[in-house]
Amino acid sequence: MSKELILEKINQAVKILNEKNIDLWLLFVRESGNMKDPMMDMLVGTNCTWQSAYIITKTGDTIALLGSLDVANMRTVGTYKEVHGYIKSIKEKLIEILDRYKPNKIAINFSRNSCVADGLTHGMYLELLSYLDGTDYKDRLVSSEELITALRGRKSNAEIELMKDAIKETLKIFDEVTAFIKPGVTEKEIASFILGLCEKRNFATAWEKDYCPSVFTGPDTAGAHAGPTDRKVERGHVINIDFGVKLNGYCSDLQRTWYVLREGEDKAPEEVLKGFNTIRDSIQIAAKELKPGKKGCEIDDAARNYIVNSGYEEYPHALGHQLGRFAHDGGGLLAPRWERYGDVPFMVIEEGQAYTLEPRLTIKDYGIATIEEEVIVTADGCTFISEPQKEIYLIK
Amino acid sequence: MSKELILEKINQAVKILNEKNIDLWLLFVRESGNMKDPMMDMLVGTNCTWQSAYIITKTGDTIALLGSLDVANMRTVGTYKEVHGYIKSIKEKLIEILDRYKPNKIAINFSRNSCVADGLTHGMYLELLSYLDGTDYKDRLVSSEELITALRGRKSNAEIELMKDAIKETLKIFDEVTAFIKPGVTEKEIASFILGLCEKRNFATAWEKDYCPSVFTGPDTAGAHAGPTDRKVERGHVINIDFGVKLNGYCSDLQRTWYVLREGEDKAPEEVLKGFNTIRDSIQIAAKELKPGKKGCEIDDAARNYIVNSGYEEYPHALGHQLGRFAHDGGGLLAPRWERYGDVPFMVIEEGQAYTLEPRLTIKDYGIATIEEEVIVTADGCTFISEPQKEIYLIK
Repeated sequence: MSKELILEKINQAVKILNEKNIDLWLLFVRESGNMKDPMMDMLVGTNCTWQSAYIITKTGDTIALLGSLDVANMRTVGTYKEVHGYIKSIKEKLIEILDRYKPNKIAINFSRNSCVADGLTHGMYLELLSYLDGTDYKDRLVSSEELITALRGRKSNAEIELMKDAIKETLKIFDEVTAFIKPGVTEKEIASFILGLCEKRNFATAWEKDYCPSVFTGPDTAGAHAGPTDRKVERGHVINIDFGVKLNGYCSDLQRTWYVLREGEDKAPEEVLKGFNTIRDSIQIAAKELKPGKKGCEIDDAARNYIVNSGYEEYPHALGHQLGRFAHDGGGLLAPRWERYGDVPFMVIEEGQAYTLEPRLTIKDYGIATIEEEVIVTADGCTFISEPQKEIYLIK
Repeated sequence: MSKELILEKINQAVKILNEKNIDLWLLFVRESGNMKDPMMDMLVGTNCTWQSAYIITKTGDTIALLGSLDVANMRTVGTYKEVHGYIKSIKEKLIEILDRYKPNKIAINFSRNSCVADGLTHGMYLELLSYLDGTDYKDRLVSSEELITALRGRKSNAEIELMKDAIKETLKIFDEVTAFIKPGVTEKEIASFILGLCEKRNFATAWEKDYCPSVFTGPDTAGAHAGPTDRKVERGHVINIDFGVKLNGYCSDLQRTWYVLREGEDKAPEEVLKGFNTIRDSIQIAAKELKPGKKGCEIDDAARNYIVNSGYEEYPHALGHQLGRFAHDGGGLLAPRWERYGDVPFMVIEEGQAYTLEPRLTIKDYGIATIEEEVIVTADGCTFISEPQKEIYLIK
C-alpha cells in the first residue's frame, strides 16, 4: 500500500475516533514477519520485530514505539509523525505516552467477531495487561472492532475504482475459461489455465492459489473451499468456479456457473435451469433488501427463504461477506443467526461497504449452482459493481 | 511443507506430549488466509476459513474439526486421521471430542514469550472460554509454548541438512557480492544485485525483501533492520550485509563484514581490525559456552562481556535466535536479562537446536562490524554449520 493511501486511511481513522468518541487507538503487535496483524498493511505499511505500539489519537497524532533497531526503517517508511525506540522494555515509554493523552478509552486490536480486528494475540494481551498493572488504563481497554469495521468497510471512491478494475479482469478471465472448457479436461487443468493467465498478466490471486480458483464439475464435488482435483468435465455436468484476483492491493471474488450440453441438447435441462435461475433471482431479491440501517441477517433471510421456498436445502454458509484488501474483509457479514457467526449477523449495514452475494444450491445429479456478485451499499440501496450473470453459460 | 514432513513433526509432537505428560494439544484458529498461526504450516499443512480446532493427543490421535466447507480440502491434504465438519457452531462437537479424552491438560496456542507459540488471538481465546463455560476443561488450559519450543527447536538430521543447503547458497552469494562491491555503488544497488541472483536461482529470501538483504555502508547507517538506501560505498567504509535465503522451507540468516581500502592501503586500519576481530572472537567465546542445560542469557553474557571489556558499547539486542522454517524460530533466545525478553533469556538450551550468533559493535568513523554465524547444539557443546568468517573481506 502506498504511503499516500496509508495516510488517507489514518486520516479516516482519526475522523472515526471522533465519531465514536474514543481518544486513542493502540495497535499492539510483535514479529510481524511470522504472523501479521491484518491492520498492519493499512495503518502502518511495514513490519516490526519486537513488541511494538502504533498509536493514533483522536487529536490526529500518530506515534510508533518500537524496538530500537526497527526505528530507522519506520522513519524511512514515514507514515507516523513520532517514532520512538526502546531497548530494554516498551513499558515505560508506553505509559509515558498514555499519560500524555490520558485517554477515556483505549481501543486495542482484539475482537471475538471479526478476524481482521483480532490481530492481538492472547500472549500479547497478557503482556499489555502486565504493563498497565497499577494504572487506570487497564480498565479503559475496549475492542477496536467498531473502528476497524468502519475504516475497512467504508470504501472511498478511489478504492471502489480499484475494486472495479479487479472485477473487470476477473470477468475477462471467465470469458476465456468458457472457451477453454470442454469434456475431458480436468478441474486441475482448468485451474492451471486460469493461473497461467494470471501469471502472464502479473495478477496475484485474491486468496491462496491452492484453491483460487476453486473448480467444481459435476454432482460429486466438494462444492466449495477445496482445491481442484483430477475429476474430468463430462457432458451433463454443472460446473462452477470461484475465483478472484488482487490488483493494486484490492481483491475481486466472483463465481460463475456453466452447463456442459449433452449430445442433442441445445439448452440446459429444466431442473438445471430452475436451479440456476433460483440462485440468480435470489441474488436480485437480496440486493433489493440491502440498504444502510438494515442488519446483515435480514439480507441473508431474503435469499435463504427464497431458495428454501423454491424447494432446495438452505446453503451452509453466509450469503455474503465484505471484501476489499482481503477477499474476506471488513467486520459485518450477511450471515444467518448461527452461533458460529457470533454477533456478526446483527451488525448494521453502512453506506460505502462492499459485499459479495453468493448463495448456492445443489442440483441433484448435475452439480452445484452458485453465482457470486459484488455490490456497493449506496445511500438508499446498493449497486452492482460486477455485471451479473443472467444466463447459465453453455459449453458445447 | 510436504505431507511426510508434517506427519514426521506430528509424530514428534506425540512423543513430546508424552514426555511433558500433557494429554491433548489444541490448535485453535480461524481465517488463516488473513493471519496464520505460525504452527499451521508445520502441524496442519493447509488453511482454514472458519473457527477450526486441530487436535493432537498423547495417544497419537489427530482430529481436525472445521467449518463444513473446509472438510473436503482437509481430507485431500490428508494430514489428520479424523476430519469433522460443523455448520452452525464448533462448540458441541469440540466438547464431545474433549469428553472422549477427558484430558488432564489442554495445551493451547498462546504464549507471552514466544511469538511462534502465540497464534491464538485474544478474541479467539474469549470464544474458546465461552464454549468451555460450565465444563471442567476451562481450568485445564495451559500454554503449548513448551511443546512448540521442543518441537521447533529440536531439529532432525533431515532438517539440519536442509539448513546447510541454505547456508551454502548464501555464502556463495556473499562471495559474488565481494566481487561486485566497489566505491560508488549504492546500498540499493548491492541489494538489487543480491535479489537478482535470488530470482535467477529461484530462491526466496529468508525474511521480507524490503530488508533482506540489509546493506549498511559507512559510519552513518542505521546498522540493522532497515532497508538499503541510496548511500554510496566510499573508500574507508566498513560495510555489513545481513541476508538469508529460504530453500525447501528452511532459512539461513548470516552476516558478513567488508572494508573498502583507501588509496595506498593494503589492509584495514588498526581500529577496524580491532573491531572486526573483537566480534569474530566474541562469537568463538560464546560458542564455547553454548551447550545443553545452560540458559540463553549465560551465552549472551560471554559475548557481551568480552565486547564491553574490549572497550565497546554493548549491542542493543540478543546475541542470537533460533532459526528453522522462519528466520526467527523456536522459543529460546540467547538474550540478555531485559524486560522486553520476558522469561526467554532463562530458557534452557537443548540438543538439536539451531542458533545464530550475531553480536555487533560500532567502529567509530568507519561503520558497523558484525558477523552472524549458525550453530547446532550437540550433546556436549555446539558445532558451526556455517563456515565462520575469519578475516574482514577487503574491497580494492
